[in-house]
Amino acid sequence: MASAFQNCRSVMVTGASRGLGLQIVGSLAKSCHCPGKVIATAREPSRAKELRCLVEKYPNIHIVTLDVVNQESIANAAKEVEALVGEEGLSCLINNAGINVVANLEKVTAEQMMQNFETNSVAPLMITKTFLPLLKKAAARSTGMGIHRAAVINMTSLLGSVELNWGANANNFKWYPYRTSKAALNMVTRCLAVDLEADGILCTAIHPGWVRTDMGGAEAPLSTEESISSVLSVIGNLSEKDHGGFLRYTAETLPW
Amino acid sequence: MASAFQNCRSVMVTGASRGLGLQIVGSLAKSCHCPGKVIATAREPSRAKELRCLVEKYPNIHIVTLDVVNQESIANAAKEVEALVGEEGLSCLINNAGINVVANLEKVTAEQMMQNFETNSVAPLMITKTFLPLLKKAAARSTGMGIHRAAVINMTSLLGSVELNWGANANNFKWYPYRTSKAALNMVTRCLAVDLEADGILCTAIHPGWVRTDMGGAEAPLSTEESISSVLSVIGNLSEKDHGGFLRYTAETLPW
Repeated sequence: MASAFQNCRSVMVTGASRGLGLQIVGSLAKSCHCPGKVIATAREPSRAKELRCLVEKYPNIHIVTLDVVNQESIANAAKEVEALVGEEGLSCLINNAGINVVANLEKVTAEQMMQNFETNSVAPLMITKTFLPLLKKAAARSTGMGIHRAAVINMTSLLGSVELNWGANANNFKWYPYRTSKAALNMVTRCLAVDLEADGILCTAIHPGWVRTDMGGAEAPLSTEESISSVLSVIGNLSEKDHGGFLRYTAETLPW
Repeated sequence: MASAFQNCRSVMVTGASRGLGLQIVGSLAKSCHCPGKVIATAREPSRAKELRCLVEKYPNIHIVTLDVVNQESIANAAKEVEALVGEEGLSCLINNAGINVVANLEKVTAEQMMQNFETNSVAPLMITKTFLPLLKKAAARSTGMGIHRAAVINMTSLLGSVELNWGANANNFKWYPYRTSKAALNMVTRCLAVDLEADGILCTAIHPGWVRTDMGGAEAPLSTEESISSVLSVIGNLSEKDHGGFLRYTAETLPW
């Protein structure tokens, strides 16, 4: 686990009711280097049983209701988080919530393309935009770049790399909606990096690997623990050189 | 003008009522190396005055009604084009129709993101998918790769390059919906290239330059004639090495 998180006052993770989001929250909360506050969002907290169990054990976890494709819900969540973090602002926003609409060329519909884009590309942009005042507050209290100051992490995928969508990679996962949404998220990350640099807010896209979650399926090579242990280590060590970058969970740079 | 078009039996251009689409149709029709049929689509042909003037002069231009974001309209257009091209199929589909929703981080809304994505990324995919039987028919009649056989050209933009969205390039055009939609279109192009390779259908993304159209504005450096003269030369010379590529109007490869 990345000891750098002890210098991070607050982390917010979207899509924390299961899969990688739940693992991030659990791993951070259990760590002896835990950030001050771990804010876990879920669309329906009442149905997020595992997350609620974690909260009972670790009181530094705070659950906030957030439907990532609902602008009113985003605005309400921002108010709630503002009350939680106060003048310290929000140090690290991890846009983790995402869906995988699996459809090849034969099956794909316009509606599927729109749905995957809305959740995976538009939602992280609108959430970042709405939480920007809280991120700026945190950034204003420190210098340099990294999670000790303020950062936006977009959980993307290697399948969003246009460059790597060729040869063996391309023949395995012909998922038009998912691949397109992650390529779009990579552009959103890069646009945000350009715009938030002046405020000292670091923006990076991270590929967590292929993981055994509901989304990744049973044949994936990584457990959620393995993936998130590496991802948190990468996030903890991010600095100016990673701003606007696309990193694998092993910290290597990926091509766009 | 690219003489290669004389070996191309039919070209279909979407968004042909004005701007680059109109210029492509005009330049092809006027050329002494004109393809057999030039199919020009427009959402409302009755309002496409300049296109209708061209048809009066050049009877090898055929106007077809097509609203690129309406699946029923796409299906109807495909039937109409099928009747026009017959057993020869469609040799070259140029997905040119596009919009530019200009919005920076402060102004951007989820609706703007969705709208630009629908027209610029989803529509070219759904049109290509619907016209695939006609492209396959053309491809089955020839060998090699290029417009003499069958090709899908997606008119994209340098602003869709995630890699190039940095430094001076990035500071000039902070258009979240447009940049994201073109990055997504680049992924769509690459996915299509992977899937259509076995059928011998070439797929390439082309950046036409910054052009003085309604979209590009008056300060753009290129006239529509200059841009399209180069673009048609590039399209005419496309071969296997360009399959799945991202080319500038000057034929150089651009980074994703």
